[in-house]
This record gives sequence, structure tokens and C-alpha cells, in this order.
Amino acid sequence: MTGGTIYGVGLGPGDPELMSVRADRLLRNARHVAFFRKAGRAGQARRIVDANIAPEAIEFPMEYPVTTEIPLGDPRYNQILSGFYEDCAAHLRGLANQGEDVVVLCEGDPFFYGSFMHLHSRLAGVVQVEVVPAITGMSAAWTATGQPVTWGDDVLTVLPGTLAEEELVDHMQRTDALVVMKIGRNLAKVKRALDRAGLSERAWLVEYAAMAGQTVTRLVESRCETAPYFSILIVHGQGRRP
Amino acid sequence: MTGGTIYGVGLGPGDPELMSVRADRLLRNARHVAFFRKAGRAGQARRIVDANIAPEAIEFPMEYPVTTEIPLGDPRYNQILSGFYEDCAAHLRGLANQGEDVVVLCEGDPFFYGSFMHLHSRLAGVVQVEVVPAITGMSAAWTATGQPVTWGDDVLTVLPGTLAEEELVDHMQRTDALVVMKIGRNLAKVKRALDRAGLSERAWLVEYAAMAGQTVTRLVESRCETAPYFSILIVHGQGRRP
Repeated sequence: MTGGTIYGVGLGPGDPELMSVRADRLLRNARHVAFFRKAGRAGQARRIVDANIAPEAIEFPMEYPVTTEIPLGDPRYNQILSGFYEDCAAHLRGLANQGEDVVVLCEGDPFFYGSFMHLHSRLAGVVQVEVVPAITGMSAAWTATGQPVTWGDDVLTVLPGTLAEEELVDHMQRTDALVVMKIGRNLAKVKRALDRAGLSERAWLVEYAAMAGQTVTRLVESRCETAPYFSILIVHGQGRRP
Repeated sequence: MTGGTIYGVGLGPGDPELMSVRADRLLRNARHVAFFRKAGRAGQARRIVDANIAPEAIEFPMEYPVTTEIPLGDPRYNQILSGFYEDCAAHLRGLANQGEDVVVLCEGDPFFYGSFMHLHSRLAGVVQVEVVPAITGMSAAWTATGQPVTWGDDVLTVLPGTLAEEELVDHMQRTDALVVMKIGRNLAKVKRALDRAGLSERAWLVEYAAMAGQTVTRLVESRCETAPYFSILIVHGQGRRP
């Protein structure tokens, strides 16, 4: 394949110092920088790289046409998002075909949840795509608790808080160490599930890990029914420790 | 607390460019650098930072007194390792008490499996300790496969290959996306478990992710009974993808 390369660059959890040396170098040399954001917002990914990108870089903000206005289950949701990702991918494809490299900013690690994968699936095999892995938000969260998340032969389970309560309980009962992502409005349900699985006493809630305003709270001391979008729940494993 | 700080610095999966900007900076300024290694070896962690540490840095290699000579279940194993970690921690504590900072090199992410946690548990609260998270080996592995590991509401389970076959099967049957660490001599057992869970066709074996000699193979095309220590098995989730 000739033409430019689309780089999916993981930025890590939010602290610019936690971005990789490679991500930092790609950003400083980037002529084109693309990123997702909510309409009317600066965008979290864009904010992380404020000090890294060159002033002459050409920016391409990709604004979500919909976030929570339409429920996930509604067929229109998938249809609208799918069209949006197609349009974004077409623009990037056009740049690559003109020989331009583009850095696409990705919060966290590009292949661990996140939005870049919806561009990747539309670009890979068509133009050159390269992905730079990054520190996940969950790594920042367990680091913030000051305790290792897994020891020895511990099993780790990562759950999206969006699952049904029964499913959450079922998974929680079978793991040694636990991470729950996408807490937000699901906090009350996640708390009930942890109670039923007997894990509430061991659970920590980390808000804004590795960002300004980071907080680390034992779940039993949190009285909230919701949490910010950037919240991660951690239950540490208790495996072999010589 | 006064005195120096012990930094547990994650180096990421192996490629020096995938270390964080923060890790890179700490390393270049470090007067004392400590790291684990097998007796008689250079040490993988030490090798990653060859180009980063200052020539005048004082190095403290911590050589494991035992690796696979004594089985994990033998009480002597824990006893010998425990004494070893105590000795290492005492040395680091001594340096911190003299006001010296020490960077302890950690492969991968310090709080995700790994050895640093055994020093951390002996130093935290006694001297100042700071942990720098890093890109995990599993992130490098799923990035190497060229496919996202989790989509939408996928559940991710991380299993150590050391578990009994029944336990492996049980966990494998209940997850959307899967990572198996600590493959090595457990490969034949892990393969049987994947077969029983119906996942063999979807499994990828990544050896030396983000290191020289990286290989990515579909498991069904691998005929080996063992794999290198730095091997990670990935089964990708298949969640919502607009």
C-alpha cells in the first residue's frame, strides 16, 4: 500500500506524562490530528495533548451526532453512529490517499473499548493503519488505590457497569480481582451487585484517575447514586504473596 | 515522611518507545536503579532501559534465589522468596533513609502481577513509595493481533495459565473476551481448555509482544506444546460495533 498512514495513538488515562514516548513523538511531528468529541465541548482527548501538538497542525474534530439522547437499543442509534463513523473514515481515507499521515487521538488504549476501533474496522486493509497501545484507565485507577490489583494466580474480570444486575453478580462471584468500567449512571446497580456478591467492603471507587480532580474512595464511604463518566471501580485480588 | 523516594516504574511491554514520558524522565535522572533478574542473566527489565539510564547510575541487581528449581507448592519456596524480598527491601529502605531516590525497574505495569508488589508491601508506609503505571504486556499482545480486544459491553477475563484445566474451562465459557497470561509450560493444558470451551478457532498466540522476535499466530496453526515465558493468548470479544 502506498499513501499516508493513519495512526491510532493511545494517550493513556489523562496525565500527559503517562503518554508513551512514541505517542509523544508522533504528536509533536503530526501535520494532521483527528479526535472525537461531544458537540460543543473541547474534547478530553484533545485536552490531554494541549502541550504536545504543533501549533501549525491541522485539526479535525469528529463530533458525535448523538450520545445519550437516543437509547442504545433503538435501531436509529446504530444507524446514525454507523453513518457518522463512515463519514469520519472517508475523510481520513481521503487524507491518506493524498499521502498525508494522520494521528487519531484515543483516550486510554485504542483497542480496549473506546471509539477508534470503529474507524479501524473501516480503514484497516484499505489504507495503512498503525495502532500505538497505551496505559489503560484501569491501570491508572488501581495505581491510584496504592495497592496491586492482581497477585500470583489471581483471575481478573473486567465488567462494563452497563450489564444487567444478575450478570454482574454472576461474574463478580467467580473472580479474584475485579474492575468495573462505565460506572456513571450505573453506580446504584453496581453497588447492589457488589453487595450481593459480598464484595462491597473490598471495593474502591476511583474518579478521574490520573486527571485533575482524582479521588479514591472506599465504596462503603460513598453515598452517591451516580458517578462521573470517568469512574472505575476496583476490587483487589488477594493471591499468593511471599 | 522525610528521606528519599522509592519509585516503582513500569517500563511497559518491552519496546523502549512504549515506556511513558514520565518513566523515561525518571530513568534519565536516576542516581540509583534497582531491578530483578535471574542469576547469570542480564535481566529483561534492565535490557529495556539500556539507552535510557545515565552511565553514572548506581545499579542494584536483585537476583532471584530460586525460580523453577523448587515447586510453587513447597513451603520452602515461599520462605526463600520471602527472605529474598526482605533483603532487597532492607537495602532500598537504607538508601531512602540516606535521602536517596531509587528507581525500581518493573516489566509491564507494576501493580498487575509482577514482582515489585512484593517490595511495595514491605516499603509502603515505611518510606515514600511512588508507582508509575505502564502499558501492560496484554495491551501489546492484543495490539499485535491487529484487532480490538473488547467492544461495547464485552466482559474481559484475564486468566493465569497456571490454573487447573477445569477452572480455565469454567472461566473461558463465561467471558466475551479472554487473555491468558503465564502460558509457557501450560500451553498444552490451555489448548485443551480452549477446545473444551469452544474457543480454539478464535484464539491467537502472541510471543514476545512489542519485543524483538514478536510473532502472532492463530492457535490452530501452532503445533507447539510449550511457548516462551513472554507469551500471551488472546480471544477477541465480539460486542456491539455500529
